[in-house]
Amino acid sequence: MKLKVIDVNLSTGGSAIAIINENDAKKLGIHASDRILIRRLRTGKAAIAVADISSEHIHLGEIGLFEEPLKLLGVEKGVHVDVMPCERPRSIQYISAKLEGKELSKNQIYEIVTDIVENHLSEVEMTYFVAACYSNRLSIKETVYLTNAIVDTGTRININKKVILDKHCVGGVPNNRTTLIVVPILAAMGYTMPKTSSRSITSPAGTADTMEVIAPVSLSLEKIKEVLAKANACMVWGGGNMNLAAADDKLIRIRHPMSIDPEGMLLASIMAKKKAVGATHCLIDIPYGYMAKFPTKQAASSLAAKFVKLGRMLGMKVKVVMTDGSQPIGNGIGPALEAYDVVNVLKGEGPNDLREKSIFLASEMLGMVGEKNARQKVLEVLDSGKAYAKFRKIAVAQGGRKHIKLPKARYFFDVLSEKQGTVKQINNKVIARIASLAGAPEDKAAGIYLRVHCGGKVRKESVLFTIHSQSKLKLDTARQIASEFGPITIK
Amino acid sequence: MKLKVIDVNLSTGGSAIAIINENDAKKLGIHASDRILIRRLRTGKAAIAVADISSEHIHLGEIGLFEEPLKLLGVEKGVHVDVMPCERPRSIQYISAKLEGKELSKNQIYEIVTDIVENHLSEVEMTYFVAACYSNRLSIKETVYLTNAIVDTGTRININKKVILDKHCVGGVPNNRTTLIVVPILAAMGYTMPKTSSRSITSPAGTADTMEVIAPVSLSLEKIKEVLAKANACMVWGGGNMNLAAADDKLIRIRHPMSIDPEGMLLASIMAKKKAVGATHCLIDIPYGYMAKFPTKQAASSLAAKFVKLGRMLGMKVKVVMTDGSQPIGNGIGPALEAYDVVNVLKGEGPNDLREKSIFLASEMLGMVGEKNARQKVLEVLDSGKAYAKFRKIAVAQGGRKHIKLPKARYFFDVLSEKQGTVKQINNKVIARIASLAGAPEDKAAGIYLRVHCGGKVRKESVLFTIHSQSKLKLDTARQIASEFGPITIK
Repeated sequence: MKLKVIDVNLSTGGSAIAIINENDAKKLGIHASDRILIRRLRTGKAAIAVADISSEHIHLGEIGLFEEPLKLLGVEKGVHVDVMPCERPRSIQYISAKLEGKELSKNQIYEIVTDIVENHLSEVEMTYFVAACYSNRLSIKETVYLTNAIVDTGTRININKKVILDKHCVGGVPNNRTTLIVVPILAAMGYTMPKTSSRSITSPAGTADTMEVIAPVSLSLEKIKEVLAKANACMVWGGGNMNLAAADDKLIRIRHPMSIDPEGMLLASIMAKKKAVGATHCLIDIPYGYMAKFPTKQAASSLAAKFVKLGRMLGMKVKVVMTDGSQPIGNGIGPALEAYDVVNVLKGEGPNDLREKSIFLASEMLGMVGEKNARQKVLEVLDSGKAYAKFRKIAVAQGGRKHIKLPKARYFFDVLSEKQGTVKQINNKVIARIASLAGAPEDKAAGIYLRVHCGGKVRKESVLFTIHSQSKLKLDTARQIASEFGPITIK
Repeated sequence: MKLKVIDVNLSTGGSAIAIINENDAKKLGIHASDRILIRRLRTGKAAIAVADISSEHIHLGEIGLFEEPLKLLGVEKGVHVDVMPCERPRSIQYISAKLEGKELSKNQIYEIVTDIVENHLSEVEMTYFVAACYSNRLSIKETVYLTNAIVDTGTRININKKVILDKHCVGGVPNNRTTLIVVPILAAMGYTMPKTSSRSITSPAGTADTMEVIAPVSLSLEKIKEVLAKANACMVWGGGNMNLAAADDKLIRIRHPMSIDPEGMLLASIMAKKKAVGATHCLIDIPYGYMAKFPTKQAASSLAAKFVKLGRMLGMKVKVVMTDGSQPIGNGIGPALEAYDVVNVLKGEGPNDLREKSIFLASEMLGMVGEKNARQKVLEVLDSGKAYAKFRKIAVAQGGRKHIKLPKARYFFDVLSEKQGTVKQINNKVIARIASLAGAPEDKAAGIYLRVHCGGKVRKESVLFTIHSQSKLKLDTARQIASEFGPITIK
């Protein structure tokens, strides 16, 4: 069927969508989400698109194309194309099978992931895949296939080293910015550590957001290789144009509306990013406790076991540490305030909890590669200033300024204790919410600076934390939630 | 945040979508599929929309609106609106819970269905609901809640009668157009039968498509009431503007891409349409056999038991008959060819298999309401021409012509037997496929007319079936598939 191209002037950022008139659809025997083959008459260039049906906006004899199929065909509005029905990708059958609870083979999972990366599946079809992996959990074998498929369909960083270190934290604890301290410590000792981190999705800052206060983190693959050559480590954002795990980025988008993390997909997502940089040794930190992702050590240990098993099946040495995540680690919450803590620890100062946890994690990593007297070696590198020098070297290599200068907020508000006593509990989730309302991570300088930690004694009217904000309105909203929810319990 | 309205000139036919620029989204702290509240500045009129994020097509300070939010707000392009983030519907949490395998309460299912009907959920969110009901089956209680929620959020036909009859067939067998014979038989005996049927989705014809050859089937609720008053029965399409089960129509659209039928949803979908017309007695026909929906009687009986149980819980008398579905019933396949068979049976002629099955089903229905000598009564009504008179009365009341005239195809092709022998098997699926390729149901006259049934003797080169088509191209395609797949086995 010959149809005239209309440019609908929209893009999906993924699958190719073409809209045809209801009556043309009937003639072609096509329903919404069926596939059509669109062929350019003059050049013969062809593309497959997901059909959408319109009764009003696209008239008889027209085909409305999104940006993606327009580009694939190299056509403009007004051009005539030939349209015919075509088969759906086979991967849809495999997704159906998984919905029914069947175990998928290596080839089937590869085909699904390839179709996701190549934009052959619609949002609805990808949603069925995520839902199927959530309700009918992926087996450990399927998780290995998924991890490898994500790695193989994405970009890899090839580094010619026998030992490549990596670390990961499953998150849920405000600040806890150990990566930005552990990487320079180990890099200062000569280890290679091509660290990629995430940005915040709903939290007040991700590691990449915090690092970005000091140096660019959104680098090309070429640039990352340059940084690694200069400083044997990097601290960059793992998303964006790098395409390190392209399939994963698309799946995360689909998971967002439900805030669901199918366990197998979560494991594959994390491990694929480690494998893509060639990690040989990986330390995983799972914080547990009040208002952390896992309430108890026991709840965390099932996931821990899976990380180790998956690592073994992927040919990577994985160690898991389960750490106390019952309160924020460090004082600052929000990109600049966290960066402030990181720099201070690297200068040999506090906050002590962040310093201690970083030393512990760095020592554990050294233990994994067989170094003796690990803690002593870490302390030497940290207290001598070698780690800080390495941090600055990495930052400059990434494009940061030689002299670190952190942005400061315009407005402040001190939240005071209503009574005298001991700090019993700090609610991670409420603290994060207040920092977000204050403007983090969008406003780099916004957030919270904690003045107390659990076990600390306070007097009536002593400062519990300070809210930093760039706007009076945001400061007021954050203050209001702070007074309403009282994130710090004193007894 | 104040934004200028852009009309993207598209509609979803469901949820309200608004596209905002990437950087405005960051400022608002919004991700794709989050909800935003859009308020018209002058009138204060407000609407909630699902946010989509664009980096190119919608510029800073703009908001691209689909048809739905434009209508809700009563705005045009160029108008300024105020935009702020807002909470997602609570029903999303319930869908999440179902994905985790939890049983939902009555109120939770009502809230999900209400949000579906009122277009508060995005396609991705509805997909999660369908997937959750597929992987973590609905309990019988949940199915009852879902059925009632679909009925209560849709339109009902209120008929003031103590006994209202209905029937349903789960489909899968070509022709099998018993509804169009059973309804006039029972209506001729004075019973009320407000029958709604479906159109074809992938088959060569649905009951509504076949009836449409003779009379309009897409009637308003008002018109249906008129028909019922005149003829105490109707044979109409259950979809479209009638909104009989509005939620169901939206869910069917989501189910199409995967071709999945979550059992609880299928049951709720069928029973809601019966309850919406006030049915007190309902006969369900489940055909089984070679190339039917269920391969064996045993496979069908689990579904049968659920229909009966669900009927009891809904306060409806349900009887299930499991019938032979191993070959087409009747000779014609395609709207006009099926209508031809129906009219012939009503005139007291053949095809005998369609006649016998219709007599059986009508007798079973009479048995359900306690009539004695049911078969004898059915034969009397059928052979006296009373049923045919009633059929014509219903058709005319629906807007059909007084004299039935069936359309005829332009092109024909006889498929001949390659050898002498006995017909052993007729493949329902291949027969349906050939009829579709010939143009059914879009071309009303297109399809197949069978000359043999299982058990029949054929000579070499005797006609097995005739393909009818309106186009030579379609005829050729259908011929080719017929010769390739040989739908009739002779031994």
